[in-house]
Amino acid sequence: MELGDKVLKGHIRSIGKAISCIENNRPEKEQLIDYLYPFCGKAEVIGVTGSPGAGKSTLVDKLIKRERKLGKKVGIIAVDPSSPFSGGAILGDRLRMQNHASDDDVYIRSMASRGHLGGIATATADAIKIFDAAGFDLIIIETIGVGQTEIEVMDLADLVLLVLVPGMGDEIQALKAGIMEIGDIYVINKKDHDGAQKLYAEVEYVLNINQSENDKEKNPIILTSANLDEGIDDLVKCYRDYFKYIRCNNILEEKRKKRIVNEINHIFTEKIISEVNQFLHIEKKINQWVKNILHEKVGPYTLINKKIEQFIKEFKEQ
Amino acid sequence: MELGDKVLKGHIRSIGKAISCIENNRPEKEQLIDYLYPFCGKAEVIGVTGSPGAGKSTLVDKLIKRERKLGKKVGIIAVDPSSPFSGGAILGDRLRMQNHASDDDVYIRSMASRGHLGGIATATADAIKIFDAAGFDLIIIETIGVGQTEIEVMDLADLVLLVLVPGMGDEIQALKAGIMEIGDIYVINKKDHDGAQKLYAEVEYVLNINQSENDKEKNPIILTSANLDEGIDDLVKCYRDYFKYIRCNNILEEKRKKRIVNEINHIFTEKIISEVNQFLHIEKKINQWVKNILHEKVGPYTLINKKIEQFIKEFKEQ
Repeated sequence: MELGDKVLKGHIRSIGKAISCIENNRPEKEQLIDYLYPFCGKAEVIGVTGSPGAGKSTLVDKLIKRERKLGKKVGIIAVDPSSPFSGGAILGDRLRMQNHASDDDVYIRSMASRGHLGGIATATADAIKIFDAAGFDLIIIETIGVGQTEIEVMDLADLVLLVLVPGMGDEIQALKAGIMEIGDIYVINKKDHDGAQKLYAEVEYVLNINQSENDKEKNPIILTSANLDEGIDDLVKCYRDYFKYIRCNNILEEKRKKRIVNEINHIFTEKIISEVNQFLHIEKKINQWVKNILHEKVGPYTLINKKIEQFIKEFKEQ
Repeated sequence: MELGDKVLKGHIRSIGKAISCIENNRPEKEQLIDYLYPFCGKAEVIGVTGSPGAGKSTLVDKLIKRERKLGKKVGIIAVDPSSPFSGGAILGDRLRMQNHASDDDVYIRSMASRGHLGGIATATADAIKIFDAAGFDLIIIETIGVGQTEIEVMDLADLVLLVLVPGMGDEIQALKAGIMEIGDIYVINKKDHDGAQKLYAEVEYVLNINQSENDKEKNPIILTSANLDEGIDDLVKCYRDYFKYIRCNNILEEKRKKRIVNEINHIFTEKIISEVNQFLHIEKKINQWVKNILHEKVGPYTLINKKIEQFIKEFKEQ
């Protein structure tokens, strides 16, 4: 497979082409992924998430610099689940990472949701495989905000940096939004701002509540200032140690197994539904169904149950 | 149907029971919803969304007071998609609304995701029907944050208030997160804080870019201070006018049709997948599939395609 072979050689434009192929759900997508699949599993995957404005992009930029100094090839996937609404609004932000535009061993790719169920998580999972097979050592997945979709996307990472900042109400909000549990390492960015120490204490307090005695030391909190380039070396050392720890304790393998389970479920659901749609041509019938529900006041469950029953009968007789 | 009849009479404890029934996906759920369905369609549904910390709960509290003065029955659904992670963390916040605890014509209900695909949107859609059938005049759906799930939930509302606040970086972040398009009315809360006027100007600017000449006046921006109880009357007048406008222009009917289409798709997908799972017992087989993928390096698409083919064959022969 020509495109697959080029990806395996790390050919940058082919990597871009391959990701577009999976994003647009092109027919050759499945063949491509399965062709690359045996070459996957070497890359380390870091997720970076947190509220908008927490300084994630700047932080990622600094991490890229450190990893490049160590000779690592770094791929970045910037995930923006809400961008079907805003089109290119995110592009300006990505410009901050243009420092690396001339470096062939850094590849940055924005991915937007195509609006279908589980779509962005599946597409991101496939993009990780492309980077991995292409020989990237480190893959960073960065999300724009924090929500259910972003939490799903973070499931694809081997370890997650949760970036918090003082003064954005994060102290209370982080708890309220229920996102604390998705972090492996907690990064308090903008550490020079008022309230950083207070936030540190609060995060520490919450982690102590949520963790059992045994793994108390396992979720580090690191203070950084991405803008001032401070604390970045500590953060790099911290996630390197964390990788070692999860490799030795079989945690990484378990995470990766769980990831494949999720992936199978996603792909399976998508395929079954598209199979059913193909047979049933739902989009042609749905207006009539809406009329039944809206004007004849047929309950939606009664209607759909009847349709599914009918569909199974027809399908079996086909 | 006893529970259904009690809901129709507006019996508060039965409403709570009915919502628990749909949240927990109990067997009688479908019968209940379809029983209530013919009595739905009278309530107005307002969505309230925006970043955590924007003051949405306080704002909703003030809106409830105004609507109660007009004699309206008000139901509030507080949607927290991330709460499987945080458990009861959100409860403290809801306490702010306890002002109405003794008022039988105000009913506040928190809903958390059950973790399944499209689950919270389907459950919220059903909860709206319960409130509607129970004779509530106004239903307010409030989300905790802004993300893909929240955007889906906002699709259930007849009109959406997008709450922004100055000084949280919302000026840039709102654009970046691509959430501007989901608002019908833009509320700039904490108008007494620095930067409120600047935020107003920026929101106005963005709306002017995104809107065509014809509907330029259709997306109002309202300045409020929920804490100081200022601007609330303007906001109420504004959404009343907006309701009139969307009723007269058929926009409301189109929105409701689109909502039923989404709902059919959600229910249909869930049902088909559960049907398939029942037949295939995926959860029993998935560990073997993971082994094939992880150790024998079978590509995931190849594997799943084979399994689906096999499944269809078996299903037809059954």
